[in-house]
Amino acid sequence: MKLYDCEGAPSPRRVRMFAAEKGIVLERVPVDLASGEQMSAEFRRRNPECTVPVLELDDGSCISEVAAICDYLEQLQPEPPLLGAGAAARAAVLMWNAKIEQLGLASVADLFRNSVPGLRSRAVTGPADFEQIPALAERGRQRAILFFQRLDSYMDGRRFVAGERLSIADISALVCIDFARRAKLELLDSAPNLERWYAEISARPSAQA
Amino acid sequence: MKLYDCEGAPSPRRVRMFAAEKGIVLERVPVDLASGEQMSAEFRRRNPECTVPVLELDDGSCISEVAAICDYLEQLQPEPPLLGAGAAARAAVLMWNAKIEQLGLASVADLFRNSVPGLRSRAVTGPADFEQIPALAERGRQRAILFFQRLDSYMDGRRFVAGERLSIADISALVCIDFARRAKLELLDSAPNLERWYAEISARPSAQA
Repeated sequence: MKLYDCEGAPSPRRVRMFAAEKGIVLERVPVDLASGEQMSAEFRRRNPECTVPVLELDDGSCISEVAAICDYLEQLQPEPPLLGAGAAARAAVLMWNAKIEQLGLASVADLFRNSVPGLRSRAVTGPADFEQIPALAERGRQRAILFFQRLDSYMDGRRFVAGERLSIADISALVCIDFARRAKLELLDSAPNLERWYAEISARPSAQA
Repeated sequence: MKLYDCEGAPSPRRVRMFAAEKGIVLERVPVDLASGEQMSAEFRRRNPECTVPVLELDDGSCISEVAAICDYLEQLQPEPPLLGAGAAARAAVLMWNAKIEQLGLASVADLFRNSVPGLRSRAVTGPADFEQIPALAERGRQRAILFFQRLDSYMDGRRFVAGERLSIADISALVCIDFARRAKLELLDSAPNLERWYAEISARPSAQA
């Protein structure tokens, strides 16, 4: 299996951390997003949406989208379970992961892509160009702050985001917080419960994957 | 199990159609989004994000977010599989469902919520008010059209979006097309493959659920 990857991007980092927690070693193929390699005809055959990560299987078939790749790796190697073990645990993990994706990661992406000078006409990922919308960057900032304030309250007394063990929800939240820093947004300010949780999760070896 | 629901909203419709395809009968509890019932203290205990659908289990625990609810129902009753049977099929279904969510449903939601007069200060779901951003409505319209054009090409010669049987990806795409119509966007224009596919999927009894 090969992972089409990019060092600094948040979505492939989620997959790398997920794989590292399972001890799955993936051959990494760097894709140079800065020079537009994801727009090449060759890459589009792997993912017409021109985004990383993409997991290429040994038969040449390609899986894009973090949710699909992580679910595939979970089936390939169920231990340790990162999508929850049992129906109720799994529901909690997937629920929190969806909230973190939609209210955290998507909000930070709105902020980042609509404000960073280098992305002026690249305000969304994918083959088509879109101009930045400054009002959306500000909305993204406010939504991310609101969601992480609520997550901080919820994390009072909890070690992990969903259930009694590490899951993809912790990985997604950690990656979101680090992604926000690239947009000069510090989500741990006035968030003592998340600060404690972040210190533990970011110290895991997988956080360096 | 109770499904906190709203007749006209796209997200709960995805769950109702999913359950109907499995023959699972859910007790439906209507939530009056128009009058703001989702903001009540009682509803917030079930989902602090103030969105439907929410699945309340018999022990009182609540699952929000479509991905989590559908995964739970799939585990409860695996037949017929709507998330793919086997690792490869499942990866394809989850990949396509993620693309339809992020590029289709999210784009149409950007269009709808940032342009409908009744949602002037309610441009995003959730407890906080946000003003509409007209440029985002236009971006959503363009992105939805681009994605469905690509989906139409991909559907040439295919009966279902992912694999050889109906899956959540078909359900999500169908709901997206009908949601777009509420924002006066017709995604089947110049999309002959999708038009054929839509005719078949929308004729299933579950589409009325």
